[in-house]
Amino acid sequence: MLRSFIDVEPDSHFPIQNLPYGVFRPKQEGSPRIGVAIGRYVLDLAALDEAGCFEGTAAAGRGVFAKPSLNAFMALGRRAWSELRAAVARLLGADEPSLRDNDALKERALHPLSEVELLLPAEIGDYTDFYASKAHAANVGTLFRGKDNALMPNWLHLPVGYHGRASSIVVSGTDVRRPQGQLKLPDAAAPAFGPTRQLDFELEMGWLIGTGNELGQPIPIEEAEGHLFGLVLVNDWSARDIQAWEYQPLGPFLGKSFATSISPWVVPLEALEPFRIPAQRQEPAPLPYLSPGQPDSSTFNIELAVSLQSEAMANAEMIANSNYRHLYWTIGQQVAHHTAGGCNLRPGDLLASGTISGERRESRGCMLELTWRGTEPLRMSGGEERVWLEDGDRIVMSGWCQGDGYRIGFGEVSGRIVPARVRT
Amino acid sequence: MLRSFIDVEPDSHFPIQNLPYGVFRPKQEGSPRIGVAIGRYVLDLAALDEAGCFEGTAAAGRGVFAKPSLNAFMALGRRAWSELRAAVARLLGADEPSLRDNDALKERALHPLSEVELLLPAEIGDYTDFYASKAHAANVGTLFRGKDNALMPNWLHLPVGYHGRASSIVVSGTDVRRPQGQLKLPDAAAPAFGPTRQLDFELEMGWLIGTGNELGQPIPIEEAEGHLFGLVLVNDWSARDIQAWEYQPLGPFLGKSFATSISPWVVPLEALEPFRIPAQRQEPAPLPYLSPGQPDSSTFNIELAVSLQSEAMANAEMIANSNYRHLYWTIGQQVAHHTAGGCNLRPGDLLASGTISGERRESRGCMLELTWRGTEPLRMSGGEERVWLEDGDRIVMSGWCQGDGYRIGFGEVSGRIVPARVRT
Repeated sequence: MLRSFIDVEPDSHFPIQNLPYGVFRPKQEGSPRIGVAIGRYVLDLAALDEAGCFEGTAAAGRGVFAKPSLNAFMALGRRAWSELRAAVARLLGADEPSLRDNDALKERALHPLSEVELLLPAEIGDYTDFYASKAHAANVGTLFRGKDNALMPNWLHLPVGYHGRASSIVVSGTDVRRPQGQLKLPDAAAPAFGPTRQLDFELEMGWLIGTGNELGQPIPIEEAEGHLFGLVLVNDWSARDIQAWEYQPLGPFLGKSFATSISPWVVPLEALEPFRIPAQRQEPAPLPYLSPGQPDSSTFNIELAVSLQSEAMANAEMIANSNYRHLYWTIGQQVAHHTAGGCNLRPGDLLASGTISGERRESRGCMLELTWRGTEPLRMSGGEERVWLEDGDRIVMSGWCQGDGYRIGFGEVSGRIVPARVRT
Repeated sequence: MLRSFIDVEPDSHFPIQNLPYGVFRPKQEGSPRIGVAIGRYVLDLAALDEAGCFEGTAAAGRGVFAKPSLNAFMALGRRAWSELRAAVARLLGADEPSLRDNDALKERALHPLSEVELLLPAEIGDYTDFYASKAHAANVGTLFRGKDNALMPNWLHLPVGYHGRASSIVVSGTDVRRPQGQLKLPDAAAPAFGPTRQLDFELEMGWLIGTGNELGQPIPIEEAEGHLFGLVLVNDWSARDIQAWEYQPLGPFLGKSFATSISPWVVPLEALEPFRIPAQRQEPAPLPYLSPGQPDSSTFNIELAVSLQSEAMANAEMIANSNYRHLYWTIGQQVAHHTAGGCNLRPGDLLASGTISGERRESRGCMLELTWRGTEPLRMSGGEERVWLEDGDRIVMSGWCQGDGYRIGFGEVSGRIVPARVRT
């Protein structure tokens, strides 16, 4: 098994098999740049590029790592990503002396994770959110429209999605202010304005688009994965009461746009290859533009967990665990559908999955489902109960692929609720 | 009345009272930069700034005009915009010799409009589309849900809106490819994939946000207009059959995201001040966060016209005329609502109105309404009929405020339909 000269603990999310990309700023010095996580360190790609370590690769010497976002690197395309990944893996290898034995370069290029600030990894031009878990769509449909009309007629035919708000995407660790908004209580004659009473999280994952397409030029499903740079954890915070009142007929708006949190480390598609599994069987069979060429469509086996920590709790406590495999629609189908009418994707666009719920009760990916719209409170071990999120609550989502003796981890995406700023 | 040393015809859209901003590239030379339209010319602000013509203003010497978008200039804020506008008006004045009598500077700074290419004026981070015309919402509601349920319960309480697709916003003159997509014919058991059969335009206008707000910090309605840079014409092309099948429950997606066209000239808020008129009376009264401080809320009197030209027609023929005043919700209310939950706006964001329809049949702002969902074809003078848009059709939208002896015009936003690229 591939090993690094840097010690990596067995349960670390960042062994040499992973090498996720992120944007960081050393707490001591200045400007943001691109790094790769390895064990408890971040490897400074800008410093390595400057030292000539990537010579012979397509990304070398272009300044793409001395930037505050991954966009310029992503725009170089799949071959450049693959070459760079191979170069980084080589440099970090246990038997490779060029970095291992160069103390001056190590001093410049290896920062303890505790001494850096992690920033948003990409400049996200457009953010699309899908609705790809059948269990989630069925649960929400049952709650709002009854069991017999749970899935809309279109749901099994196309990957339903909508445009989300890009400006309010924040990196893990950013506090989330409880939004105010217009909401209508069930027994009220008219709506009122005030802080949401139904604040929720949504357990999602999202793909960052590496290379896009020209307007009017769809990406065929066979080519879709070639455009994917990597995957992050996503918490699509939601205010259910604001959403319920506003969403007809044009969809969610302010019930979602106050904040969406993503994890700082982008796990490249290549790191996930060993964890491919067959995708869910689709019945009815999708239309040809959504049918991949190969007989078996695939997805990824990624364990997911959600923990909650209230202000009174010493530690976070797991309230849900799910898996990326619960998604009915694949990312290849989502890319093909998204561009089928000619819509252009650009480097840095985020395509999120929608809430990832499984069939089991514990695998439901949001409070709306976990508490069955507030009728079945969650009981925490310290005695607290939760129907929706309360001020001071911290939600931590984590994800990983379990390999033989190593983990390809996503780190975490966390956020704490701070009280509404009430208008005076 | 203010006059320029440059001849401006009485029906020109670009007299010295207007001074709209745009991004242009001289057809002969190189790089895009910022200009102002005056009569049949575009005034090169980058050249004037370089010549020191803006000394003493906040924008001077910062390089904000030698850029391919207005974003950097917009981010400087209202005082900078106002100072620059005053400086440009002074330079162009009939009695001011500094530019008028400097042939070398005129040669560098004045380009005939016929010799420049007009580009997208801003880098649009997020595009929001509202649904602010009551006649439009009522017509669409009647067509889809019947007369008794035309307006959704929320419509009179909040400015309904949704997130649009920013990547596919194109400048006037860009061809629009007929999108393919999934659609379900009324008598079909299952959906099919193919070119839309119900291609439509939507007559809208959109505000470019000049300065934004921090995430979590709403913009009060009293301050909303201070964040507005200027106004453009918008054609939000729509594929009604794709939209009808996909839109539940998360709203429009691929039925809209194939293209949105905007006009190249951004008319600043200051140029529109003489055309303020009282806004529509709102009943029920809006909640306090949507109620402006002054007793009378205002909007703008802007004439709008839509023309269609088929391949067989020698000239475009007017098929609808409307007015910005038909909007029920004001831009101030839209900004206050959009940010009420903390969502952040950024320089260059586009807030479009939604289709601007009035009460009269001729003032309906899209084919869906004009042909009453295809049941009342439009008859063109040459004998052609239209239910939806056909390949080769060109749609031209125009808008202007009629002053006493001058026009504050928006120029036009046009686009021609080219045939679908059918998958083989």
